[in-house]
Amino acid sequence: MAFSGVFALVGLAECEEEKGKASAGQTKKAGGPVKEFTGEEVAEHCTRDKRVWVTYKDGVYDVTDFLDMHPGGAQRLMLAAGGALDPFWAMYAQHNTDEVRQMLEGYRVGTLVGAAANQQVADPYANEPKRHPALVVRSQQPFNAETPVDVLGTSGLTPNELFYVRNHLPVPHVEPASWSVRVEGEGLKRVELSLKDLTTKFKKHTVTATLQCTGNRRDQFNDVKKVKGLEWGIGAIGTAEFSGARLSDVLAYAGLDGDTIDEIEHIQFEGLDSDISGTCYGASIPISKAMSRHEDVILAYEMNGKDLPLDHGYPVRIIAPGITGARCVKWLSRIIASKEESQSHWQQKDYKSFSPSVDWDNVDWNSAPAVQETNVQSAICEPRPGDILEGSTDEVEVRGYAYSGGGHAIVRVDVSADDGETWITAELEPVYNRRSRNWAWTLWHTTVPLPEAKDGRVKLICRAVDANYNTQPESPAGIWNLRGVLNNAWHEVVLSIE
Amino acid sequence: MAFSGVFALVGLAECEEEKGKASAGQTKKAGGPVKEFTGEEVAEHCTRDKRVWVTYKDGVYDVTDFLDMHPGGAQRLMLAAGGALDPFWAMYAQHNTDEVRQMLEGYRVGTLVGAAANQQVADPYANEPKRHPALVVRSQQPFNAETPVDVLGTSGLTPNELFYVRNHLPVPHVEPASWSVRVEGEGLKRVELSLKDLTTKFKKHTVTATLQCTGNRRDQFNDVKKVKGLEWGIGAIGTAEFSGARLSDVLAYAGLDGDTIDEIEHIQFEGLDSDISGTCYGASIPISKAMSRHEDVILAYEMNGKDLPLDHGYPVRIIAPGITGARCVKWLSRIIASKEESQSHWQQKDYKSFSPSVDWDNVDWNSAPAVQETNVQSAICEPRPGDILEGSTDEVEVRGYAYSGGGHAIVRVDVSADDGETWITAELEPVYNRRSRNWAWTLWHTTVPLPEAKDGRVKLICRAVDANYNTQPESPAGIWNLRGVLNNAWHEVVLSIE
Repeated sequence: MAFSGVFALVGLAECEEEKGKASAGQTKKAGGPVKEFTGEEVAEHCTRDKRVWVTYKDGVYDVTDFLDMHPGGAQRLMLAAGGALDPFWAMYAQHNTDEVRQMLEGYRVGTLVGAAANQQVADPYANEPKRHPALVVRSQQPFNAETPVDVLGTSGLTPNELFYVRNHLPVPHVEPASWSVRVEGEGLKRVELSLKDLTTKFKKHTVTATLQCTGNRRDQFNDVKKVKGLEWGIGAIGTAEFSGARLSDVLAYAGLDGDTIDEIEHIQFEGLDSDISGTCYGASIPISKAMSRHEDVILAYEMNGKDLPLDHGYPVRIIAPGITGARCVKWLSRIIASKEESQSHWQQKDYKSFSPSVDWDNVDWNSAPAVQETNVQSAICEPRPGDILEGSTDEVEVRGYAYSGGGHAIVRVDVSADDGETWITAELEPVYNRRSRNWAWTLWHTTVPLPEAKDGRVKLICRAVDANYNTQPESPAGIWNLRGVLNNAWHEVVLSIE
Repeated sequence: MAFSGVFALVGLAECEEEKGKASAGQTKKAGGPVKEFTGEEVAEHCTRDKRVWVTYKDGVYDVTDFLDMHPGGAQRLMLAAGGALDPFWAMYAQHNTDEVRQMLEGYRVGTLVGAAANQQVADPYANEPKRHPALVVRSQQPFNAETPVDVLGTSGLTPNELFYVRNHLPVPHVEPASWSVRVEGEGLKRVELSLKDLTTKFKKHTVTATLQCTGNRRDQFNDVKKVKGLEWGIGAIGTAEFSGARLSDVLAYAGLDGDTIDEIEHIQFEGLDSDISGTCYGASIPISKAMSRHEDVILAYEMNGKDLPLDHGYPVRIIAPGITGARCVKWLSRIIASKEESQSHWQQKDYKSFSPSVDWDNVDWNSAPAVQETNVQSAICEPRPGDILEGSTDEVEVRGYAYSGGGHAIVRVDVSADDGETWITAELEPVYNRRSRNWAWTLWHTTVPLPEAKDGRVKLICRAVDANYNTQPESPAGIWNLRGVLNNAWHEVVLSIE
């Protein structure tokens, strides 16, 4: 979910402050006579012509003027037109802040009375799975959490329980016996495959792949200019051994062969995770990625030798190695061969990047391609920011991870303790990679001699080089983008010297 | 050719200055009694045990202590042990400078007399082709020249006569009727193919590809720290439509199929251009690149619809799109399928990159992979550095090229006139690219509003983003490398304001 409109609203909210910081959902306390409306009256205001009203708890709001400022788009807010915001806000917990509630209050036109005022909203997050307490939680609803840094940089495969979680919606619960995936599209037979079909009709293929959230390391962008989105540190990344059926085999089974392929440019995926309107999570990958056996795209039903965990798409998800995590659709329900990309919000208006001069006010989402393969990345996992070294220490052991999308090998990682004046080239520990397709990260370590501390501090920097000899840019300023994705600036860790 | 040893020798040369700047090849003028040696006496000094002597014109030099400092390696200098340097220096014209001659003089032990003193050396460059006068020459022997910048950025296809030339050795002259290429290797039939075979036995395949010298834009590195190598500006790049036989078809014809492929990791190429010892230019590419039809590697015999020009490998060269120019072997004579990379100097000890902290004294050539696919690149072609704008001008039209190796599309080019504070996103003009394989550069243009000039100057910067969302690093300092390859720092052009 995007948030640009929040900025637009901040100004309004500030005006409201003088009125006593009323907050949406509270019964209005002061001012003129309170107008009262029933649910039926509110329901009439469901188009721009008639003005668009919504309710939240017992407040009635005219949001017509806010429609085009809504970060998720006018269309999404229109889903609540003439009705309650409450179920949507229960789904998208990012609305549930004082700031947003105060903004909404600026649009208040009255108070809801009658039966509609007392309706309870079912909690869509009532049935979330139990999670490991060591996960570093970035949001509870939807659940998003990082792998603890202690595990990164030391473990080639990330344990399932500690693998970072990026959910966009509540976790759907699926009975494996009733689960199936539908495969369809132009020129294809329409095929419905059960879990048993997947495991018995198709050869099991195993691939060790790194998954990385497109927003990994977003937090550093905030030092440049505030971005909206989950404040991911370096832990929205992990590597596992995934097993399943090759996508190319499944597509061939549905009749997609060389003759039909010219008609088809993209393979779309849909998940069972859906919002209150029934819109499910979706994404697509290019046909060239989907159809080549060498690209190793699978319908994964195992992760590190076990069933997929609930948070990771049980019973079946897409693993498209070398491609950003957002396209590896979880809780897979549908595969569509098409001339078009997925038209989902996440493919069209979310995981894209722009120049630092593009902001929420002037962004043209069609002007940038959806992120697929990702850039060269690395981070220092040990030592940790703020670690304290004894003054007598003259060197420090440094370790971390490096990864590049598209199957590009990591060929070098350099570490500097003197702001890039000199570099130590680290030892690489490639994990389960193959000749030309490097889907998994490379762990690395080295010992760095420490320079004189300045103000009791020493800064370590790392940066990686991949097989194309692309490398990471020095600072996040040049790659800052409104959605805060794909930050791969040099990673810095500042240590204290006692 | 590398030059590290030159640095080591500079110290020596400086000591020699006090002795009157004697220069190798001149009869020694002053000092003690001149020792005289015949060719036969010199010839005895051909091993380290017996000391290694060489002659240059009438000078005799003991270069034993210099062997391990020779930039091209001790082995190459040993080719002249007990004999004359003259033919080697005629081949590698970079030796032919006052600086190098003065250094050599530091090793003088006497003067050559007798028949050997009067031998003439044939000029290996006597039969070079005629070149277009507009080419921007960086060295005459071997011939190396840039495409004029006026042509870059405005012409999707670079005219043959103006296409940048990167020769390592004299241009070999080939009679097309007697030319053939030999194809061989483990598990392959040994096949000899004439030009007629190539044009009649195999389907003609056309690919529009950008070639770029690995050293393109090397000149900017010299602002950081001096590198040795041709001082390429932004013009060691060009794009042409090449036609020829697919390498995968030729290899299949020689029996390389799925069954034999596991034994083979690299396809090596040899050219007819060779040095005085008979060592020919060579390079290799990975088997995955060579064998896939989608990778479009061809044995090209046409360039922009005409025969290959002499400077570009007539009659047949390799075009491996997306891969650095150095692997696209010209004047092709041999193709070898092998477990091993090419063992040539250029594959093993030249076109590689290291951290900025690696210098000629501590470089381990085996520690870095040979450059194949290249990083994301862009340059401003118009306006040109030093162009003068009228003070009343409030905007400037900017155009240039952008390119990324490995078939990665260019998805964005940004231009800044205020040191990266704000960016204008340029219009892209993709040239002859296809869905998933973008082998040709993307030209771009935009209009940039000019800020207040500082000290009468305005600096324009450009940088590109490719489909992997890799981008160019801000400055050349972080990517400086001893061989000066793969500079893709933000490109800057400084203008004067009247």
